[in-house]
Amino acid sequence: MYVILVYDVNVNRVNKVLKVARKYLHWVQNSVLEGELTEARYRKLKAELLAIINEKEDSLLFYTFNTRKYTSREAIGVKKGGEEWIL
Amino acid sequence: MYVILVYDVNVNRVNKVLKVARKYLHWVQNSVLEGELTEARYRKLKAELLAIINEKEDSLLFYTFNTRKYTSREAIGVKKGGEEWIL
Repeated sequence: MYVILVYDVNVNRVNKVLKVARKYLHWVQNSVLEGELTEARYRKLKAELLAIINEKEDSLLFYTFNTRKYTSREAIGVKKGGEEWIL
Repeated sequence: MYVILVYDVNVNRVNKVLKVARKYLHWVQNSVLEGELTEARYRKLKAELLAIINEKEDSLLFYTFNTRKYTSREAIGVKKGGEEWIL
């Protein structure tokens, strides 16, 4: 399955969330990652992220597709948000 | 065409961006909107947003699909980010 993840989490948890998400998906732009996952790895990703986030403050949005079906992905503006955990 | 928009803009421009984006798409969660658009309205949306954002500080990410093709959309955690311009 193909997964697009959009996260919006407290700055204190951004690095942890990114570090986990990058084990499963590749970073696209700002708070978006995507990639091909098995159903099992998708469940594992969700479980790992749920253990990190505070559901009262943070949010995660997962789009799933049978295959990578988007026609285009267009990015406008600055690229940001993927660098934090490297620094 | 079906469009998913993820925005990450300076707080000073969030309300303006949301107000424009909501004319074309419906708000989903945090910084994500989506909806069915004609090619012409998609171009118009981009033009309107480009007039608002600062490309050195802000970012927009558009996914486009021939039709709404996602299998599931799963939201975890707090719903936020869509209310600002109403308040």
